[in-house]
Amino acid sequence: MYISLSQLRIDPARAPELVEAFRGRCGLVDTNAGFIDLQVWQSERDAGEIMMVSRWKDRACFKAYMKSADHRFSHDRISDSLLTAIELEALKHMRTYEVVAE
Amino acid sequence: MYISLSQLRIDPARAPELVEAFRGRCGLVDTNAGFIDLQVWQSERDAGEIMMVSRWKDRACFKAYMKSADHRFSHDRISDSLLTAIELEALKHMRTYEVVAE
Repeated sequence: MYISLSQLRIDPARAPELVEAFRGRCGLVDTNAGFIDLQVWQSERDAGEIMMVSRWKDRACFKAYMKSADHRFSHDRISDSLLTAIELEALKHMRTYEVVAE
Repeated sequence: MYISLSQLRIDPARAPELVEAFRGRCGLVDTNAGFIDLQVWQSERDAGEIMMVSRWKDRACFKAYMKSADHRFSHDRISDSLLTAIELEALKHMRTYEVVAE
């Protein structure tokens, strides 16, 4: 199993807006080969720290999704206002992992 | 759902030993109320970065486990040699999250 972890930072006052956007996501990713699930985690101590965690069958499936039109479409749905508020800095805060034990 | 995330750091040469220790874990945690699952993630870019991720029904279940004899017993099984090699620094690297969207 392969993990993609994106650590987002936002003004805590705007965190509910970001969470709502995730709750209203279009779900396109769910139809991609090898997709297992996606969760959004909000830090207990720091409401402005949000983790987006997706799990995949393997690296190849994740890489294929990242290059897909589905990914572009899903990303383009995020409002400019919210994108500006998120200190995402793209790949800098995206880390990937292999699941090595359970 | 409630998440506990521990970020461990170890000399990459000793990472396989740590992964083996997780694979051989006694599984006591699995019997605790509210436990959902546990995964160990190894960074793709940095083999010495290991994440231990456990998922719980809620905060109360996790806190009860952390105070339990099962937790003490599981922790005490880790060899002193491995504990010394892990730059765990206890709570400093443990972060907790609420799952806010899926």
